[in-house]
Amino acid sequence: MYELVIIGGGPGGITAAIYAARKKMNFALIAKDLGGRTGLVPEIQNYPGFQTISGLELTDRFKHQLDELKVVPKFEEVLKVEKAKDGFVVKTDKNSYEAMTVLVASGARHGKLNVPGEEKLNNKGVTYCATCDAPLFADKDVAIVGSGGPGLNAALMLMRIAKKIYLVERGPELRGDKMLCEKIVCEPKVTILTNTRVKEILGEKFVSGIVVTKDGTPEEIPVQGIFIEISYTPNSEFVAHLVKLNKRYEIIIDDNCKTSVDGLYAVGDVTNVPQKQIVVAAGDGAKVIWAIFDYLHRQK
Amino acid sequence: MYELVIIGGGPGGITAAIYAARKKMNFALIAKDLGGRTGLVPEIQNYPGFQTISGLELTDRFKHQLDELKVVPKFEEVLKVEKAKDGFVVKTDKNSYEAMTVLVASGARHGKLNVPGEEKLNNKGVTYCATCDAPLFADKDVAIVGSGGPGLNAALMLMRIAKKIYLVERGPELRGDKMLCEKIVCEPKVTILTNTRVKEILGEKFVSGIVVTKDGTPEEIPVQGIFIEISYTPNSEFVAHLVKLNKRYEIIIDDNCKTSVDGLYAVGDVTNVPQKQIVVAAGDGAKVIWAIFDYLHRQK
Repeated sequence: MYELVIIGGGPGGITAAIYAARKKMNFALIAKDLGGRTGLVPEIQNYPGFQTISGLELTDRFKHQLDELKVVPKFEEVLKVEKAKDGFVVKTDKNSYEAMTVLVASGARHGKLNVPGEEKLNNKGVTYCATCDAPLFADKDVAIVGSGGPGLNAALMLMRIAKKIYLVERGPELRGDKMLCEKIVCEPKVTILTNTRVKEILGEKFVSGIVVTKDGTPEEIPVQGIFIEISYTPNSEFVAHLVKLNKRYEIIIDDNCKTSVDGLYAVGDVTNVPQKQIVVAAGDGAKVIWAIFDYLHRQK
Repeated sequence: MYELVIIGGGPGGITAAIYAARKKMNFALIAKDLGGRTGLVPEIQNYPGFQTISGLELTDRFKHQLDELKVVPKFEEVLKVEKAKDGFVVKTDKNSYEAMTVLVASGARHGKLNVPGEEKLNNKGVTYCATCDAPLFADKDVAIVGSGGPGLNAALMLMRIAKKIYLVERGPELRGDKMLCEKIVCEPKVTILTNTRVKEILGEKFVSGIVVTKDGTPEEIPVQGIFIEISYTPNSEFVAHLVKLNKRYEIIIDDNCKTSVDGLYAVGDVTNVPQKQIVVAAGDGAKVIWAIFDYLHRQK
């Protein structure tokens, strides 16, 4: 029986594994792959220690750190976590593991528009992370799709950077925080398009525009960038029967990264922590090992 | 008037500056120096992204990142932060700054024993960070000074690594959490020395032993390492009149890094967050910028 099973190979899970290894804990790291969404980011400029680094290179550096600590990840897919008498059973596509504690760091997957051009122009003007990519669009015209929290925050950020911003919302009015909405409505460089859907993203080598329909009428808008800020999906399915989730299916944690179930912890993009950032997941990945270490010593 | 003044140039303050700069906030970074305590660590092995890096080199990399973002730190010492009508006044040894919000990331200084040998053998067997340095003492004999939370946690960590451990406590019994104490008392490789004070650290190039007095009688104990885990001092003096501190003089924050005063935030070693770690301070340095950004937009 392991003291701890860590599920997920992104920055949160890897940092937790680094700290657990250094504390000589008896643990397993189970991941579909290493890096998670981080591995997909072409250029990371906000991880302290690197002016700029590709997601692949940062992932590679994480991997070397695990090698050095002799942590060998199990590359399996977790199907279900069940409560057992003295802890948990983690069932994967290949095996079954017993653990006194479980850390869920399985991340999230982006919400996609599923329109023509989206796949082809990904990272060529199509982006899913305003915090990462907004600075690349200085004095350019951009569209933001979605007006919930992430969309409004993208708009506030881009108001300081971009030349013109189209905020595209499917519904009849802006969602998200009223006070933020008011600020955005008052900003002359923002054009708000409600009841509007994106039908296609245009461009050959780089985004050149989008096709939207408002009340059924198609229109072409020239932009150099499109920020897709619609809901993403946390990878929480395998614990959904066990643990308290919010309405976005994020695992609810307290400031010790503890979930609603004793012995079950979570960090990173799968949780209700609003900042979906590499360094935030890493910081919490370190933090949580204290809580788990403490919990284990109280159990024994 | 600045939107934000960040006080402190360690990993928390620098990460906050990186995120604030990328959000084009109007802010100032005031620091005595860059790096803080991080700059003093000879070998960092638990910061994700680097198998091993010196504190100086990591600090240098942070500095380049600030340069790239055109953040020019003000190298001044903050003497006092005062509440003003629309925010705060930050008084330094050279200037006075107005700010709508203030982030305190001023770190802490180590508690020292102030005994002969401590200065000379610093980083040569004398260490103030078990999480950083415990792995260097595999199968060695070590002493831990102090039996509060940090001392007990150091003991739990070293029980898995070192050969023999002397836990030295000035008072008549172990302090800190009872359940942890019991675990440590039951471990055969730990010798507990209560009513005991360290008088001298011995060694030429590297620690070879310590001199302690128990009930007045001096005794020499051979060890290769000494972990000084007595209370450290948070650099919170300049806000102590303003904000709620705990009995260790740490600034009490909530899970948004907010202090007891609206508009005043804190991260890192100056706060009551128990994990005094580089990546934890950096993670919270990123996290807090969301809270501050949100606060500012609600004020305007």
